[in-house]
Amino acid sequence: MRDPWNIAVIGVTGYTGFELATLLLRHPAIATPTFYVRETQGFHCLSQLFPQLRARGEAPLCPLSIDAITSSAAGTAFLATPHEVSAEIAPQLLDAGLRVVDLSGAFRFASAETFTSWYKLPTPHAARLPEAVYGLPELYADRISAAKLIANPGCYATSVILALRPLTDASLVAPSQSVICDCKSGATGAGKDPRRDLHFVEVDENFRAYNLFSHRHTPEILEHTGLPESQVVFATHLLPVARGILSTIYVSLAEKQTPNGIHKLYREYFTDKPLVRVWPAGKLPELQHVANSNFCDIGFALDSDGKRLIVISCLDNLGKGAAGQAVQNLNLMLGIEEQTGLL
Amino acid sequence: MRDPWNIAVIGVTGYTGFELATLLLRHPAIATPTFYVRETQGFHCLSQLFPQLRARGEAPLCPLSIDAITSSAAGTAFLATPHEVSAEIAPQLLDAGLRVVDLSGAFRFASAETFTSWYKLPTPHAARLPEAVYGLPELYADRISAAKLIANPGCYATSVILALRPLTDASLVAPSQSVICDCKSGATGAGKDPRRDLHFVEVDENFRAYNLFSHRHTPEILEHTGLPESQVVFATHLLPVARGILSTIYVSLAEKQTPNGIHKLYREYFTDKPLVRVWPAGKLPELQHVANSNFCDIGFALDSDGKRLIVISCLDNLGKGAAGQAVQNLNLMLGIEEQTGLL
Amino acid sequence: MRDPWNIAVIGVTGYTGFELATLLLRHPAIATPTFYVRETQGFHCLSQLFPQLRARGEAPLCPLSIDAITSSAAGTAFLATPHEVSAEIAPQLLDAGLRVVDLSGAFRFASAETFTSWYKLPTPHAARLPEAVYGLPELYADRISAAKLIANPGCYATSVILALRPLTDASLVAPSQSVICDCKSGATGAGKDPRRDLHFVEVDENFRAYNLFSHRHTPEILEHTGLPESQVVFATHLLPVARGILSTIYVSLAEKQTPNGIHKLYREYFTDKPLVRVWPAGKLPELQHVANSNFCDIGFALDSDGKRLIVISCLDNLGKGAAGQAVQNLNLMLGIEEQTGLL
Amino acid sequence: MRDPWNIAVIGVTGYTGFELATLLLRHPAIATPTFYVRETQGFHCLSQLFPQLRARGEAPLCPLSIDAITSSAAGTAFLATPHEVSAEIAPQLLDAGLRVVDLSGAFRFASAETFTSWYKLPTPHAARLPEAVYGLPELYADRISAAKLIANPGCYATSVILALRPLTDASLVAPSQSVICDCKSGATGAGKDPRRDLHFVEVDENFRAYNLFSHRHTPEILEHTGLPESQVVFATHLLPVARGILSTIYVSLAEKQTPNGIHKLYREYFTDKPLVRVWPAGKLPELQHVANSNFCDIGFALDSDGKRLIVISCLDNLGKGAAGQAVQNLNLMLGIEEQTGLL
Repeated sequence: MRDPWNIAVIGVTGYTGFELATLLLRHPAIATPTFYVRETQGFHCLSQLFPQLRARGEAPLCPLSIDAITSSAAGTAFLATPHEVSAEIAPQLLDAGLRVVDLSGAFRFASAETFTSWYKLPTPHAARLPEAVYGLPELYADRISAAKLIANPGCYATSVILALRPLTDASLVAPSQSVICDCKSGATGAGKDPRRDLHFVEVDENFRAYNLFSHRHTPEILEHTGLPESQVVFATHLLPVARGILSTIYVSLAEKQTPNGIHKLYREYFTDKPLVRVWPAGKLPELQHVANSNFCDIGFALDSDGKRLIVISCLDNLGKGAAGQAVQNLNLMLGIEEQTGLL
Repeated sequence: MRDPWNIAVIGVTGYTGFELATLLLRHPAIATPTFYVRETQGFHCLSQLFPQLRARGEAPLCPLSIDAITSSAAGTAFLATPHEVSAEIAPQLLDAGLRVVDLSGAFRFASAETFTSWYKLPTPHAARLPEAVYGLPELYADRISAAKLIANPGCYATSVILALRPLTDASLVAPSQSVICDCKSGATGAGKDPRRDLHFVEVDENFRAYNLFSHRHTPEILEHTGLPESQVVFATHLLPVARGILSTIYVSLAEKQTPNGIHKLYREYFTDKPLVRVWPAGKLPELQHVANSNFCDIGFALDSDGKRLIVISCLDNLGKGAAGQAVQNLNLMLGIEEQTGLL
Repeated sequence: MRDPWNIAVIGVTGYTGFELATLLLRHPAIATPTFYVRETQGFHCLSQLFPQLRARGEAPLCPLSIDAITSSAAGTAFLATPHEVSAEIAPQLLDAGLRVVDLSGAFRFASAETFTSWYKLPTPHAARLPEAVYGLPELYADRISAAKLIANPGCYATSVILALRPLTDASLVAPSQSVICDCKSGATGAGKDPRRDLHFVEVDENFRAYNLFSHRHTPEILEHTGLPESQVVFATHLLPVARGILSTIYVSLAEKQTPNGIHKLYREYFTDKPLVRVWPAGKLPELQHVANSNFCDIGFALDSDGKRLIVISCLDNLGKGAAGQAVQNLNLMLGIEEQTGLL
Repeated sequence: MRDPWNIAVIGVTGYTGFELATLLLRHPAIATPTFYVRETQGFHCLSQLFPQLRARGEAPLCPLSIDAITSSAAGTAFLATPHEVSAEIAPQLLDAGLRVVDLSGAFRFASAETFTSWYKLPTPHAARLPEAVYGLPELYADRISAAKLIANPGCYATSVILALRPLTDASLVAPSQSVICDCKSGATGAGKDPRRDLHFVEVDENFRAYNLFSHRHTPEILEHTGLPESQVVFATHLLPVARGILSTIYVSLAEKQTPNGIHKLYREYFTDKPLVRVWPAGKLPELQHVANSNFCDIGFALDSDGKRLIVISCLDNLGKGAAGQAVQNLNLMLGIEEQTGLL
């Protein structure tokens, strides 16, 4: 019998995996998960891999084996694996009756063409794409509760979609004007593998744009805001910080607004959404407000003519942008309060 | 007799003053300047104030006295003072026959109304505004050569104007679409006075937007690109680095372009401009490329439809964005190569 | 009736106060404390002062009033105030029957002379010094449990004493040789008040020694290791990071040791001390292992001759070095597990 | 005919190579060097490898060929290559009549045993070790002027030897007490090759000790201070900054001294040494004072009993600690002022 409160975590060596392990070990409603990695590197327990976790929660580190997982009582699996690996593993776990939360991009699109076009890869997992639910709880909580397969959103995409969706739902985006998403992320977002351009000396006291017009989170933004590709410009930059994303989003409004009106729109949209914090008019959130948290903070500035809006949306890319959101999805799947273990 | 090669530097305690002193002490064509400060704080020479300068070039530190300056042989004065101070001092020096390079915002606008509107201050210096030349050498070298009073441009403004002017001169900016200037600066741009929000802990591992729709460099950008205020959105952010500005500028083009065409446009525009480096299509400049330099580096990315352009413009806010540009202006005023002492 | 589980926190505007508030708001065994500040700056609740705390736990911010505290049911008070303020307030609260945990240096020394000599201040609170217990739980848990007044140790002192005490208790320090404590701290340790030398630009990409031979934590180290002043050299440095202390401590051993012997000594000394983590021979703790934690991590390297020992001791200066240790003391005073709310 | 002013630079891809190229391209007394690399990576000129150098000085990048070098007129070669490569190449260049400045550790020791013992490598170049001169100009200027082969010192070693040598020459170090060298370096000192432990996220907001009792610069310190290995403890740490070394050196003095006496000792020792700056008693140098410079700054604090001395020695590891010192050696070899091109 599968037990949904019995958790398997697959792929725990990266920054997202570390964050996920930390959150799950502290989670008040679940037992210690079982952690699987493709290569144990000689480590026997999680705290050998991450000394930060010593004495906070000890757990063995198991070599990845689909058989071991499917023959265990595990009812829910997290995949913190590269998208190629997730595409291969997730179907096997689903077939064995587990529910899966995948943190990669493998299952984020309804259409295999979208995946192929942006990831430049074949789609052996095409048949499972339609059953995946995009795991953005503020938008799709009901479907998430019932889902077998959750595609946990991209970090940038979470930040941008939460900022834009109240505006698009209210038809406030002027149709003929570009929506500019100028996004900046800390270096944990780029992964843990050693790379020349992520060497300390190359990032410290530096700042750079990258992947202009080609970032893989673009199709998530289009799909969940409903904006056409021709209207959205999405640009990403690397900040010399470890954690956090701040998105500056420029919107021309379809009709004149007041600061109070914009504030009311966001506040009402996110009523009863415990992990989105809307800032009052005249105040802006900063990266430090959300670092090491699982919140998305949203603030704005409106031009004196009431037609040009700048939305500031920030979150921790490992928290609300990845592992925190994955746990929020787990909470919904388990039927408990979505913010459990996340405040 | 005034000697234009005899330099007085007024106000040398801030980051810009330090950079200016460093550049002038190394300048191969001029003698050691005389440095004046409003309060000597008990320091007798420049290297007591800035230990970095010990043994690199020693110079006395003099208490500020307009009489002392005007009765010396000094022919050229740099003002690295706050705009209120510059507004008061510059006319006195001009009346005494000195040529003045002012690094503050006091003389950057042709109209006193513009100054009052953005700086919220009276304009005792209104009468001198028309004689000031905006000291952006790539645009106004001839007028600079002959000027008595140079208004050295703002750091953000330099970065944005150099990026946009080739496009506006070629009428390539689509008239009905916003031009978005998303700019990020290091902390030296915010000055040296102790402030809670510039405390190390408040900037480190942080990133924030500030002065949205209200930054004082806005009118410089409007005046020197010719774009109407309603078309330009200028947003500034504080980076957790000491030096450098990177501006990401979003332009909808009036007509379809190719990457080669855009590259050619910039390259030709900045032919014989030794301190602007145009990057080839497909490569983008980064903050580290210009830190501690006097260059402005410009690169770009063009959408596959050829209509949406992102320009990346970066410079060192203390170099090409302030002191380096001031020295470039000096070189033009002295009739020597503009890059002298700046490579 | 005083209720020891009813907590008053006085002075919550600094970095230590923020950390203390964060820990107490998450503490599973106590109700929301009452927070007092000397100046409310117009803020009505804690999350206006610290936006990070929005939606994590809301609490009102009260103007400091000794009457208000003593007439409430509060049984325990934390003082996160400067030592002058603590020296004045603590006696009043003690007289009213509260138990007090003071995070300043006011009550850390048995002798008023020691305080006067290092703090250059009179000691109006001299009469209360003997009743204070030095709140280092790994050494003095029994006395802490029963104490009315806890002097929470200095951050550097905690790091050094925990590293040295196992050696001094075992008489392993060679008597005629200096013990060198070369300590490095992040900038939160220097406080939150704006200062030129703590401006971002002055700390970023910098590193400096300060207070050589004169740091106020010196007498704590002497008093709790038993080493004579002539044998200890304590030097402090400012790291360009927000949080964390790493101490490199050089000891000449009285007799030849093996790595296993040293490891065993530390491991046994800290058996059942849940907030000290001893590292195995050949591995060294790093600042990141303890940042945002309440642990002190201790590792070492032994010379091949077995006579020269380097101990690395690190902790988060706001965690185990201040607020975390204060909460650990609270836990002991309340008779609950000392690590409650601290893992 | 070999022309000593005609320079070949071999190995220019790392941080030291970049710094060397920058200094040589700006050097007022020599022509543009020829740059050789083992792999051109498809780059044709230096500024393709280092965009910072664009328009500052363009130079072709040549594939490394000993034949090409020896058949050119080059009279002096810099080797910014790994020690294995230097050990192989230097003899060939020497045999062809070039003078060689090697920046690696290959030729730093008089004895092949020392090299083998610390570098764990064979010594095919053993025969050439005796002819190498240790390139520390403040100590060995005369021998450097005449040398054919210069072993440019290690960065840490430079910092420590310059701090200790005035004391050892004056017999001021107490013989039975350890000399503790607690040294901290920025990350450029660890090289440019991608490594997990040098990834931005692993260094940012971190600090760690490494290579305790085993750092390869140890034998340089011993050889040039004359102190026995049993008396010196040398510990190295990684700072979260790009550039700079600060060494805190603890010395027990053989006899009581005054601050003025210590200051006089250092000042006189470094009279006419333009690249060492001695700080007055009561003031300490910081990393920022020497970053991007070619100076070594030395300050100190003396205990009130006059017997315990802390010396602070700092330099830029790429400047005075590597490339700057290499150019200083070149200047001596060419018979020009040693600080030429280095202020």
